[in-house]
Amino acid sequence: MRVLLSTAFLLLSFPLAAAEGMWVPEQLPEIAGPLKKAGLQLNPNQLADLTGQPVGAVISLGGCTASFVSPDGLVITNHHCATNQIQINSTPSKNLLETGFNAATQADELSGGPNARVFVTENIRDVTADVKSRLNEKMDGAARDKAIEAVGKALVGECEKTPGYRCSMSRFFGGLQYKLFKQKEIKDVRLVYAPPRSVGNYGGEIDNWMWPRHTGDFTFFRAYVSASGESAAFDKANVPYRPKQFLRIGSEGLKQGEFAMIAGYPGSTARYAFASEFANTAQWTYPTRVRNFRNVIALIEEAGSKDPSVKIKYAPTLRGQLNTMKNYKGQLDTFGKSNSVARKNSEEAKVLAWLATQGAKGKAALKAHQELVGLLEQRKKVQARNTVIGGIGGLYGTARTLYRISIENEKPDAQRVAGYQQRDMANLKGSIDTFEKRFEVGMDRKILNYWLQQYIQLPASERLPAFDQWLGGNDQAAIDRSLDNLYANTKLTDATERSKWFGATRKQFESSDDAMIKLAVALMPTTLELEENDRRDSGNDVKYRPQYLQGVIDYNRSQGLAVYPDANGTLRITFGEVVGYSPQEGVNYLPFTSLNGVAAKATDAEPFDAPKNLLKAIAEKRYGNRAVDGLNSVPVNFMTDTDITGGNSGSPTLNSKGELVGLAFDGNIESVAANWLYDPALKRTIHVDIRYILWMMEQVDPAPRLLKEMNVVQ
Amino acid sequence: MRVLLSTAFLLLSFPLAAAEGMWVPEQLPEIAGPLKKAGLQLNPNQLADLTGQPVGAVISLGGCTASFVSPDGLVITNHHCATNQIQINSTPSKNLLETGFNAATQADELSGGPNARVFVTENIRDVTADVKSRLNEKMDGAARDKAIEAVGKALVGECEKTPGYRCSMSRFFGGLQYKLFKQKEIKDVRLVYAPPRSVGNYGGEIDNWMWPRHTGDFTFFRAYVSASGESAAFDKANVPYRPKQFLRIGSEGLKQGEFAMIAGYPGSTARYAFASEFANTAQWTYPTRVRNFRNVIALIEEAGSKDPSVKIKYAPTLRGQLNTMKNYKGQLDTFGKSNSVARKNSEEAKVLAWLATQGAKGKAALKAHQELVGLLEQRKKVQARNTVIGGIGGLYGTARTLYRISIENEKPDAQRVAGYQQRDMANLKGSIDTFEKRFEVGMDRKILNYWLQQYIQLPASERLPAFDQWLGGNDQAAIDRSLDNLYANTKLTDATERSKWFGATRKQFESSDDAMIKLAVALMPTTLELEENDRRDSGNDVKYRPQYLQGVIDYNRSQGLAVYPDANGTLRITFGEVVGYSPQEGVNYLPFTSLNGVAAKATDAEPFDAPKNLLKAIAEKRYGNRAVDGLNSVPVNFMTDTDITGGNSGSPTLNSKGELVGLAFDGNIESVAANWLYDPALKRTIHVDIRYILWMMEQVDPAPRLLKEMNVVQ
Repeated sequence: MRVLLSTAFLLLSFPLAAAEGMWVPEQLPEIAGPLKKAGLQLNPNQLADLTGQPVGAVISLGGCTASFVSPDGLVITNHHCATNQIQINSTPSKNLLETGFNAATQADELSGGPNARVFVTENIRDVTADVKSRLNEKMDGAARDKAIEAVGKALVGECEKTPGYRCSMSRFFGGLQYKLFKQKEIKDVRLVYAPPRSVGNYGGEIDNWMWPRHTGDFTFFRAYVSASGESAAFDKANVPYRPKQFLRIGSEGLKQGEFAMIAGYPGSTARYAFASEFANTAQWTYPTRVRNFRNVIALIEEAGSKDPSVKIKYAPTLRGQLNTMKNYKGQLDTFGKSNSVARKNSEEAKVLAWLATQGAKGKAALKAHQELVGLLEQRKKVQARNTVIGGIGGLYGTARTLYRISIENEKPDAQRVAGYQQRDMANLKGSIDTFEKRFEVGMDRKILNYWLQQYIQLPASERLPAFDQWLGGNDQAAIDRSLDNLYANTKLTDATERSKWFGATRKQFESSDDAMIKLAVALMPTTLELEENDRRDSGNDVKYRPQYLQGVIDYNRSQGLAVYPDANGTLRITFGEVVGYSPQEGVNYLPFTSLNGVAAKATDAEPFDAPKNLLKAIAEKRYGNRAVDGLNSVPVNFMTDTDITGGNSGSPTLNSKGELVGLAFDGNIESVAANWLYDPALKRTIHVDIRYILWMMEQVDPAPRLLKEMNVVQ
Repeated sequence: MRVLLSTAFLLLSFPLAAAEGMWVPEQLPEIAGPLKKAGLQLNPNQLADLTGQPVGAVISLGGCTASFVSPDGLVITNHHCATNQIQINSTPSKNLLETGFNAATQADELSGGPNARVFVTENIRDVTADVKSRLNEKMDGAARDKAIEAVGKALVGECEKTPGYRCSMSRFFGGLQYKLFKQKEIKDVRLVYAPPRSVGNYGGEIDNWMWPRHTGDFTFFRAYVSASGESAAFDKANVPYRPKQFLRIGSEGLKQGEFAMIAGYPGSTARYAFASEFANTAQWTYPTRVRNFRNVIALIEEAGSKDPSVKIKYAPTLRGQLNTMKNYKGQLDTFGKSNSVARKNSEEAKVLAWLATQGAKGKAALKAHQELVGLLEQRKKVQARNTVIGGIGGLYGTARTLYRISIENEKPDAQRVAGYQQRDMANLKGSIDTFEKRFEVGMDRKILNYWLQQYIQLPASERLPAFDQWLGGNDQAAIDRSLDNLYANTKLTDATERSKWFGATRKQFESSDDAMIKLAVALMPTTLELEENDRRDSGNDVKYRPQYLQGVIDYNRSQGLAVYPDANGTLRITFGEVVGYSPQEGVNYLPFTSLNGVAAKATDAEPFDAPKNLLKAIAEKRYGNRAVDGLNSVPVNFMTDTDITGGNSGSPTLNSKGELVGLAFDGNIESVAANWLYDPALKRTIHVDIRYILWMMEQVDPAPRLLKEMNVVQ
């Protein structure tokens, strides 16, 4: 949550808390002292340069991070960030997820599909004043939310007048600051090299979030643009993108205790949540989500075990759900162990007590805190219902999206709801077109059936009349009847049909007798009403949260501490060192694993079915020059105490010179609770070691073309 | 399996293999060098003295080990060795398993029931010549087995002419040696002090075989004898037994790397099994047993969750089954990891190759090996059937035992089968009398139903005509009919009725119309036939195995290595040091845990529901003088590389001066495979630390009376 500002304290205190902090680039000069002290050999100010070396090479894939590693747009990220792109190039008989992929030449590189993206951040501008100028005290929640959206859209619209760019406005400290991000959007992203699943996801869900780890979680893409260098959809005639910056490969890797740094796009943290908000999460939200995930996962696994096509189609869904469920369970475990609710209460009590001594400014923050608590109590009354509605997607969700497009299309572009503007259409089209790859009608019905079963258990106060009317009853028989009718009388199960509805008019939807479309139409007023409620809540939150967080910042400053903002999907830098930890008394985790551990875990069965040729190379000790003395083997994964979260997946791990020495791909199970509370003794990032990546590409599934392109000396 | 004999090699090789070996007392002078080198401060020859200090204080409970710790017969052993004695003093409303027990005065010490025993080994005599003199080459298997039994019975009968003594003959090296053990049998064993389940079995099945561990697995008994010092059944008038030796308390405990020694009664190992015997175990026997345990455990847990009386009654059964199942699964895991079958094959191949070069003596061993392999192949043909029949017990087993007593009672005592002689009657009576504590009719039927379900799946070649006839069909309906009749038409469900049948005549059984007795009578010829088959197999085995093992010993001697015999329930000594281990790459296990870990694991739910007063003492850091600097807390459990197995539970852990510094209570999960193959890197014993035991008795559930009796300085 903070780092000491005063250099007087630094010598004593810094090493203990060095790793905490997801710093925004502009803060780096501010923490230059700690960075140099930790071992950075570059000028800290250089890290604030978005288009310089090395930060200019760090890119977003939208949900994951990646980096350029050659002048010809070669991109490295995690295998798990490439699941969709690998999967859409797979069939049951030629399953690239299983076999991996290694393009012999550039011409063999495979399109990642219409939705694959590379975003290169080129500019960040503070737009707080623009936003604040449109708000006033009298606005109600919804109006405030819409005003912010409107100014955001205007700023984004203006920004995106440059062709081939995506812009977005992000909120910091709950609304104390707003910034506009301008990113070059590359749309032709091709699959270049992927290890087999049994390397890229070695250990699978069993090892996920676990140490010791042995996962080769890396994949290479290449960014392509038109011959003239413009962003363009996939076209054979496109040429490799020439990035301004690309990372050099630090093939010597890291040692225990050595400086490590990560640049990336962490998605979301809530380290400044107020105490009752955290308690509701720990005591209701997470337990409820875990239960739902467990149930839906069981449905998918059962169907997948009987039908390989379902297994492939729902693989990304399943992997995501398993990952998220384990995350929540890990957080809940650590909350319990740490007595986190009590700790959070006690920390908040200190802040509130301090604020009470700070006169008018303190009073404002205290009042804001009270308001936030009240708003939460309101939201809790419908949170069960909102969870169910939020869970419903699949084919019905696609129909709802198609119909929504037609509604928004009736408005001028600037007035359309975010996500349905002209700028979103290619994305939406891609999503509709690739839906078939993630859809099987029987499975779709089973999942919808599950959510309806949850729905009919809701109390009257949370029911939605339009849903009740459609169901026409409150038991399984009613659900069965509704679903029989729904799936028997829709053609949307056909990909061509779905494609046809893309861009249809509102009137066409509203006069359709397709059961799925009729349902989307019937429920749309409810959908919109719930959205409006969310806006109201969001607008109310954004009214009070900045005032409260200003109080929190003031409190920390009064203690001599600097504060970084919660993760919000924007570019951050974190640094620390290679270090193990003790997960519990009597156990020490060492920071490196090696090929020896890969072989020791190997069985004939997924997820430990390491490839035969890999095991052979290990057995024959064919290490090339990637082995390390202390391990008597090639390092595979390692840990640092850097501060990351979801969204950082694929982030380059950089050494003190800014060279690529690994990829962040996971946190330890104890770290996930750091979304809410940071514990320096337990929070660790898990990386795949560059030496393992190079060894794979040298000894197991050789890719001399790429090694040469990255200037790797073998 | 061996320790280097030649002192020339010792300096180099001994430290690596120091911990391997379950040495018989007479071997201790032979390994005096290694013992001194490892740190023993006593004269090694002293350890060979069965009635001296400290070995004279080490006693058997029959299945567990224990030791005297005061001149007034105070005994310390594991809590899990006392489950039966605690349980028979428990009721649902006053459950000593849950609450623990602390006798305020000697008068409050509770009878451990008619079956509780303390055995004090006073003499061991080699009787190999006696046995060999009764055997000849022409005997068939059954005759050989009976001849050995006959000489054993004669020797035991002679030995037991001393009142109050139990004698037994044990086989070493598969029959190369026989020894006669004479033990004082103390029959009045009382419960003195037991921690609550949430200390004595803290971590339950989850932590069983696991590290890090935090279990207070200790309990105190006291041995009582008649006023004249004779062995006597429980009587209020009995007085505490005055043992020849008792252990001094080494309350300073051990440090990492320090010498540790264990004396006890390890039950059984098979480190000299031939390769195909091991393969059959790894590939058939253990997987089959794991499956059966899993199924029966599920039945008991389900019934127990609905009925607290069933839960209490079947607690010892369940605990034993869970423990054994986890043991087998642990062994299977380690077999797989170590590629043990291949390793065993390769080791055997070396022995066989060496034997082939050793002329006539080598040829005899080779032929014996071939014969053993052939015998195994025969046994494999009926192993599925024998597993099912072996599983059937419960009320039917009690009826079978009662009827069998009447059959054996018709013979002169010396001709009765072992276990049914006059000397066994008190034990049998105790077992029948306490059966009620472990019996609930519904549960009994469910378990019998399970085994019958297994039976009807057997192929025709393994079926038993008498069973088939009783079932009268081969489906669930037949089982249901048979069980309906069986339980509806028996009075044996009543404890008084069972008691009445104890000592009834064969004729009374054979004319009874009680369905359970009729079944026991109907199946007895089959029972006897299967026993006869076992005798035949055993007699054949004992013909060939000594010849083969002589070859194995000769081979090891040719390599300069000494050999200790497999564990067989007789007194052994093992020594090593306090040391952690690495269960896998990237993980180090440290050898000590502390109160901090007890608190960290604590939840409100079993098995981590640590007592409130214990947690309070930890929170208040009330350590007395039991804390250790390095831990900043009181040590709870620790590990050594000593070589133990089941039967060693409760064994005293001794320091270099022979003082009590802990109790062995478990092995790590990797160690259980050492029943077949020893791995010095992975085999560890888990001990409860004397400092935790004393701390419990000082700070949590004070027992000043016992501390004073043990001369403990607080």
